[in-house]
Amino acid sequence: MTEKTIVIAGNSGGLGHALQARFSAGGYHVVPVSRSGAGDLHADLRDARDTARLFESLDASKPLAGVIHNAMQFHRGAFLDTSPEVFEQVWRSMTLTAVNVAQQAIPRLRTNGGGCLIFSGASGSMRAGPQFSAFSSAKFALRGLAQSLAREHSSDGIHVAHTILDGLIWSDKTQQRFAGAQANSSMAAKDLAEVYWQLFHQAPSAWTHELDLRPMSANV
Amino acid sequence: MTEKTIVIAGNSGGLGHALQARFSAGGYHVVPVSRSGAGDLHADLRDARDTARLFESLDASKPLAGVIHNAMQFHRGAFLDTSPEVFEQVWRSMTLTAVNVAQQAIPRLRTNGGGCLIFSGASGSMRAGPQFSAFSSAKFALRGLAQSLAREHSSDGIHVAHTILDGLIWSDKTQQRFAGAQANSSMAAKDLAEVYWQLFHQAPSAWTHELDLRPMSANV
Amino acid sequence: MTEKTIVIAGNSGGLGHALQARFSAGGYHVVPVSRSGAGDLHADLRDARDTARLFESLDASKPLAGVIHNAMQFHRGAFLDTSPEVFEQVWRSMTLTAVNVAQQAIPRLRTNGGGCLIFSGASGSMRAGPQFSAFSSAKFALRGLAQSLAREHSSDGIHVAHTILDGLIWSDKTQQRFAGAQANSSMAAKDLAEVYWQLFHQAPSAWTHELDLRPMSANV
Amino acid sequence: MTEKTIVIAGNSGGLGHALQARFSAGGYHVVPVSRSGAGDLHADLRDARDTARLFESLDASKPLAGVIHNAMQFHRGAFLDTSPEVFEQVWRSMTLTAVNVAQQAIPRLRTNGGGCLIFSGASGSMRAGPQFSAFSSAKFALRGLAQSLAREHSSDGIHVAHTILDGLIWSDKTQQRFAGAQANSSMAAKDLAEVYWQLFHQAPSAWTHELDLRPMSANV
Repeated sequence: MTEKTIVIAGNSGGLGHALQARFSAGGYHVVPVSRSGAGDLHADLRDARDTARLFESLDASKPLAGVIHNAMQFHRGAFLDTSPEVFEQVWRSMTLTAVNVAQQAIPRLRTNGGGCLIFSGASGSMRAGPQFSAFSSAKFALRGLAQSLAREHSSDGIHVAHTILDGLIWSDKTQQRFAGAQANSSMAAKDLAEVYWQLFHQAPSAWTHELDLRPMSANV
Repeated sequence: MTEKTIVIAGNSGGLGHALQARFSAGGYHVVPVSRSGAGDLHADLRDARDTARLFESLDASKPLAGVIHNAMQFHRGAFLDTSPEVFEQVWRSMTLTAVNVAQQAIPRLRTNGGGCLIFSGASGSMRAGPQFSAFSSAKFALRGLAQSLAREHSSDGIHVAHTILDGLIWSDKTQQRFAGAQANSSMAAKDLAEVYWQLFHQAPSAWTHELDLRPMSANV
Repeated sequence: MTEKTIVIAGNSGGLGHALQARFSAGGYHVVPVSRSGAGDLHADLRDARDTARLFESLDASKPLAGVIHNAMQFHRGAFLDTSPEVFEQVWRSMTLTAVNVAQQAIPRLRTNGGGCLIFSGASGSMRAGPQFSAFSSAKFALRGLAQSLAREHSSDGIHVAHTILDGLIWSDKTQQRFAGAQANSSMAAKDLAEVYWQLFHQAPSAWTHELDLRPMSANV
Repeated sequence: MTEKTIVIAGNSGGLGHALQARFSAGGYHVVPVSRSGAGDLHADLRDARDTARLFESLDASKPLAGVIHNAMQFHRGAFLDTSPEVFEQVWRSMTLTAVNVAQQAIPRLRTNGGGCLIFSGASGSMRAGPQFSAFSSAKFALRGLAQSLAREHSSDGIHVAHTILDGLIWSDKTQQRFAGAQANSSMAAKDLAEVYWQLFHQAPSAWTHELDLRPMSANV
């Protein structure tokens, strides 16, 4: 098999690294992208031009097989304390980055005879709780985008999936940020990566658009 | 009863006028707001400062009872033909206007001992079809916002509702825009206005957060 | 207006009595039906023949305008402690009664030029929690039935609605059964009855199929 | 690894045979069960005692790892032409069989330190269309059951999943029953079986409760 390229955008809670490891082990040319750029390709995916530049820079390489989008900006806070600027920022980080990435990826995947786009959602994608107005609004928006893309581009051989990560991903950062988080009630990034790998390779006769994921110990 | 003020933002398909008529008949001081401003108060609700200015200008008047938000920017088009700018515009028109309006209304309603916010959604708020990436993504985002506000501010006596308008509202514009639209398979703006009136006045022991509305003749 | 008949099946938490009062005040000939039959017409709606007998007995009276179905059998318990017989009983009480009632009502409403059927759901209709396998399974089943009937019979002028009662209805029985239930965090039956009245009389251009109801103080 | 037993109940559209092949290849002791019993173990899973007898007969064999439930009774027909008996039958075939099977399996899986139950749903599990009152009502009921079991028994190490098969499974029977069905717009049973295999073996830190499956060519 010809080696193919997969772009992994964002590293929420270590998921990016685990996906990188899983898809590298599976023979892909993995291109991790993040804003910080530590060890990754740097691109600001909130910017359409910068995103275009990124994908163009990959065109000389192996053909694109797909993109996994984890770009994440967690935000919790009272609605009245969330400025419209922050509200917009959260939307740009989680939704507009997905728009930009999809607009670059879809034409390339179409040319390559198909491919897969996975967008990572959260429990807040399905149910918007108090203190989550900005976060959930952006995650709902991302879900609407993914659903529309799935319906619009499946006939091009493009499999669009949306995952609902219903829990914390275990990492050092998680420990610091969420008092009381525990490994055995969190999700392991490598286990999630395995599910993404499976989703990415589903046969065209049986594509999943949406699935949820949570640790056994969680009250679902 | 002291006369109270209601702000009606946007006039999608004549719904704004019908709401104006219904709430005026019911004794409210109705403040219609639109971007065009024809006969209405002019304000650009995509702009937080302009929205603040609007609500401040009403503070000398009757106390605020609530807001109905119909700000609407219909958009249908292939995803690959929808520029990120248009995608953002649609979100600004339908979601950010709701953020701005809610941030002005909620503190005032809290001071007044409660009130009601109604946000108008569409069938695209629940299911994102092909050609509706920008529209549905923004309508999903609005729904997430409304849900979070309901949960965050019900204890302040603020009733937040989200309607799902699953069909066309009958108007001259509808006739022009949608070939084949017919009065008897469309919704009458005055009938919708009656439901909004009822929602707005539900007793605190029985509040509806979400309801759908469609014409009898529609295949639901 | 010619007086019309409405059948109110079941009295869950006093809702039946409140509906009776509201529709009587509104000029209907109200026929309350319950298994116990205290003050009501007696019929076992789990039995198709008994249900047929009931509706036939009403045919000499005012024409049927609709039915409100609240037949309820609350059940909470560990799945492994719920015998298949109990599981079935709960389904018979809440779902099969709705089938039987709808099969009698629909042909009559069609003949009368239309009408309204309202089925009362619960929070367990949308989300099935632990200890609610029998209850939620039956409530999910009722929701599926209502949805199918709405789509199949709206063109006959029959408005089918499903309410999601997300909370307790305040009554003496509620106080006894649920320790800690309080009036101000429960729903008042008369407020619910008002919403049912409004639903029942929605104009054909703007029909609601589903709405939720909960007390202000509830975390929605 | 000790060989383990998996029970596969029902063969809807050839899915049973494909699951049998997949899990046999993966080293399981596969016990197919069907009402007809052709080549399978015969048991009437609508009957609690017969279901108990079946599971007891397996107790001497390899320990139980889980059950896949595909018991299916397709039914399409006008509501007014569907007798309460047929309505009940459809519920018995698709929901009560799941109750019976789960009541036998859960205590055994708990003893064995965990396991997996997969219930097969359909598009009608999520949206009840006209002519599908009996079918969708039963499929909704099955979904409610599965959801409650997932929440009640995940702490026992029991992974409960619900699949939404949104399309036809390709088989000779499909061809006969649905005029116009085509292989390339249907799902291949072996591809579905692969997804079930993956679901069945998800790591406890990342369990999926629900996923949809449809062919690429379907309008999702």
